[in-house]
Amino acid sequence: MTDTQDIAALIDEMGRAARAAATDLAFAPASQRARALELAADVVEMKRGAIMSANARDLAYGRDKGLSPAMMDRLMLDEARIAGIVAGLRAVAAQPDPLGAVLAEWDMPSGLHIRRVRTPLGVIGVIYESRPNVTADAGALCLKSGNAVILRGGSESFHSSAAIHGCMIEGLRGAGLPETAIQLVPTRDREAVAAMLRAVAHIDVIVPRGGKGLVGLVQAEARVPVFAHLEGICHVYVDGAADLDKARRVVLNAKTRRTGICGAAECLLIDRAFYARHGAVLITDLLAAGVEVRAADELSAIPGTVEASPEDFGREFLDMIIAAKLVDGVDGAIAHIRRYGSSHTESILTEDDAVADRFFARLDSAILMRNASTQFADGGEFGMGAEIGIATGKLHARGPVGAEQLTSFKYLVTGDGTIRA
Amino acid sequence: MTDTQDIAALIDEMGRAARAAATDLAFAPASQRARALELAADVVEMKRGAIMSANARDLAYGRDKGLSPAMMDRLMLDEARIAGIVAGLRAVAAQPDPLGAVLAEWDMPSGLHIRRVRTPLGVIGVIYESRPNVTADAGALCLKSGNAVILRGGSESFHSSAAIHGCMIEGLRGAGLPETAIQLVPTRDREAVAAMLRAVAHIDVIVPRGGKGLVGLVQAEARVPVFAHLEGICHVYVDGAADLDKARRVVLNAKTRRTGICGAAECLLIDRAFYARHGAVLITDLLAAGVEVRAADELSAIPGTVEASPEDFGREFLDMIIAAKLVDGVDGAIAHIRRYGSSHTESILTEDDAVADRFFARLDSAILMRNASTQFADGGEFGMGAEIGIATGKLHARGPVGAEQLTSFKYLVTGDGTIRA
Repeated sequence: MTDTQDIAALIDEMGRAARAAATDLAFAPASQRARALELAADVVEMKRGAIMSANARDLAYGRDKGLSPAMMDRLMLDEARIAGIVAGLRAVAAQPDPLGAVLAEWDMPSGLHIRRVRTPLGVIGVIYESRPNVTADAGALCLKSGNAVILRGGSESFHSSAAIHGCMIEGLRGAGLPETAIQLVPTRDREAVAAMLRAVAHIDVIVPRGGKGLVGLVQAEARVPVFAHLEGICHVYVDGAADLDKARRVVLNAKTRRTGICGAAECLLIDRAFYARHGAVLITDLLAAGVEVRAADELSAIPGTVEASPEDFGREFLDMIIAAKLVDGVDGAIAHIRRYGSSHTESILTEDDAVADRFFARLDSAILMRNASTQFADGGEFGMGAEIGIATGKLHARGPVGAEQLTSFKYLVTGDGTIRA
Repeated sequence: MTDTQDIAALIDEMGRAARAAATDLAFAPASQRARALELAADVVEMKRGAIMSANARDLAYGRDKGLSPAMMDRLMLDEARIAGIVAGLRAVAAQPDPLGAVLAEWDMPSGLHIRRVRTPLGVIGVIYESRPNVTADAGALCLKSGNAVILRGGSESFHSSAAIHGCMIEGLRGAGLPETAIQLVPTRDREAVAAMLRAVAHIDVIVPRGGKGLVGLVQAEARVPVFAHLEGICHVYVDGAADLDKARRVVLNAKTRRTGICGAAECLLIDRAFYARHGAVLITDLLAAGVEVRAADELSAIPGTVEASPEDFGREFLDMIIAAKLVDGVDGAIAHIRRYGSSHTESILTEDDAVADRFFARLDSAILMRNASTQFADGGEFGMGAEIGIATGKLHARGPVGAEQLTSFKYLVTGDGTIRA
C-alpha cells in the first residue's frame, strides 16, 4: 500500500462508505448514537490492557525514531489517560443531542409554515498527529452530531489509534449502526492525507488537529473546506481604566496557567495611562513567575526584561515567554491586534464600559473577552462539552467547535396544496 | 489591461481596499448602511436616463455579438425594470438590520457571561452574467449585511453595470461610507474571474449568479469558498395518500408557473398506489397545459407522452418539459431522489403524517416541502427579503441566501477578573 494510485483508490472507497453511512446516521435516533458511544467506552475500559500493549509498540517505534520527550509524552497512554478517554466518551454520550432541533419556525402569508431544523454535515475528515486519544474524542463528537468520520492519525500513534478505533467499531456494532460510520485510514503513507484533502466528493469538511506545520499544510492544500486555526496569537490589553488587582490576576493566568494551549496569551499590551499610574507591576509579576518578558520601548528598561525584536510580535511562543508593549489607549491596542493578531482570542482589562464596547465592536476575533483570562478559550469552558478544536475562519464554525458546530440545517416547509401565484 | 499580471495586481489592490472597507463597515451603524441604500435608490431613479443610455450601448454590443433573444431580454433595462431596481434598493434598506443581534447568551459556573453576536462575513465576491440589476441587488445585500463586495458583471452588461455601480457609489459617499465598500471590476477580461477565484487572502466567499456553465466553472476552480447551487433538479412526489385536488394544483404550479427558475419541478414521481386509484390525471393535466411529459415505464403508454430516455432523470430542463416515473411508495421516491436529486428542493404530496415525516427525515435537500409547490423556493417567499441566490452546499449558508446568511458571528465574553483554575 505505497502506490499513490492505490492510496487514492483506498480513500475513494472509504469516502463512498462514509457517505453511505452518513445517509443512515442522519436519521438514526439519538439514543442509538449515544448507545454506541457508551458501549465504546465500556470496551475501551475492558480492553485497556490491549490498548496499552499497542501503545507500547508505538512508544518503542517513537524511541527508535528519536522523538522528543514532549512528543513521547503526547503519545503515551497510561491507566489515567485511558480513564480520561472512557470518561470523555461517556460525557459526549450524555450531552444533549444536537440533531433535529428546530432552530427557527415561522408562518408566511402564502400559508406556508417554515421550519429550519438541524441536520448533520455529512462526512468529516479529521487529520491529527501523535495524541491517540483524538481517535476516541473526534470519533465521538462526529458520531454525536450524526456525521460519518474518516480519521487519519499520526504515524507515531498508529497502533494505539488502531486499538482505540477497534473499540469504537465494537460500540457501533453493538448499537446496530454501520461500522463505516467511524473509519481509520489503515496506512501510515502520507499520500493518504493528500488524497483526503482533495476528496471534495466524499468529505464535507476537514478538521486538522495538530501543530502549525500540519494545519498550515492542510489549509494550503485542501480543496475540501477546513475548520481550523493556524495559530493562537492571543493578546491581553490592559487599559488605563483597568482594575489593578483584576489585571494582575488575569495577566498572570492568561500567560502561565498553561503555556502550550492555543488560548495562552502571547502578547501583553499596556495602555500608557495604566503604566503611568501603576508602573511595572504587571511585568514584575510575570518575571517573578519565571516568564521571559520580551519588552519593547520603555518597558525594556525594566530590569529582568529582554529587548523584544520585531518578530516577537505576532508570534506564538507556546512557552513561558511573552511579548510586551506600551500602546496609546484602546485604539492603539486595536491597531496592534489588527496587524498582529490571528483572530483567535483577545482580552481587554477595563472598568470602562465604553472602552470595552469599542474593543468588542472594532475587533473581529472569534472570541473577545473583558476582564477574563484568554485561557478560557475552550469548548468545555464555553459549556459545549468536548470540542474538536477552535476555528478562526468566519464560515460556518467559529470559536470552539463542538458537536453543535459540526451540524448543518435544512428547511421543512408545509402547506395545504399551496401554490405560488 | 489585458496582461494577466496586471489583472492579478488589479484584483489584489481591489481586495485590499475591500478588506479595509469591510473593517470600517463592521462597526458602521445600521442607519448609515441603510441611508447609503436609500440614497443610491434616489440616484438610480434620478439617473435612469443615463442608465438606459449605457444600456443601449450594451444592447448594441449584444446585437453585434449575436446574443440570443433570451440573453438580450436579460440584458435589457427599461423604465419598469429600473423602477424595480429602485424598489429593490429601498426594500433592502427597510429590512431589519441583521448585525449585532445576540444569537445566544448564557452564564457559566466560572462566572463568565458568554454572548454570541452576529457580525459581517467580510468581503464577498459576486460573479454574474448579463442581468445588470444584480449590480444593485447584490451590492445592496452585501452592504446591508455589513460586507464589502467586489462585483464582476458579465461583459455584455459592462456599461449598464458601471452606470448602476456609479449610483451605488454616490449612495455610499452621501452616507459617509467608504466608496470601496462596493467595487465593480473595471475590465471585461475574463482573467479577472480567475484572479477572484484564487483571492483567498482578500475574498471570504464567492457567490456566482448565472447558468450552469458559470457556476460549474466557479465551483471547480475556486480556492475561495463558494455559496451556490449548480442545478435545481426539483422533484415532486405524489404519494398514495395524496389528496387528488391538492396534487393536481401543486404539480401543475410546480412545473408551469415559471419554468426558467431553479425551483421549477423537473421530475414527477407518482406512487403506484396513487396511479392505481387515480390513473393518468396528473399527466393529462400537464399535457393539457402544454408540457412535454417524458414518461418512463407504464406512464409512457399514456397518449401524448414521450418515452423518457435514461438521461431525462437528473436533468434540469428549465422548460415546459418534465420527466415522470412510477415509484413504489415513499421509499421508492426517496431512493430515486437520492440518486438523481441536486439537494435543492423536493416536495411530497400526502395526507399521511408518518409518510411525510419519513420523506423529511430521510432526504437531505436544502428545502423539503409537503403539499406545497417547489416554486416557493425563493428568499422572498421565505420572508428573507431579497436573496442573492440559493445554496445547496451544507456549510454556512443553505437554501435562500439573504442578508442574514451573509453574516458570521463572534463570541463576547465578560468576567470580573475571572481566571481559569
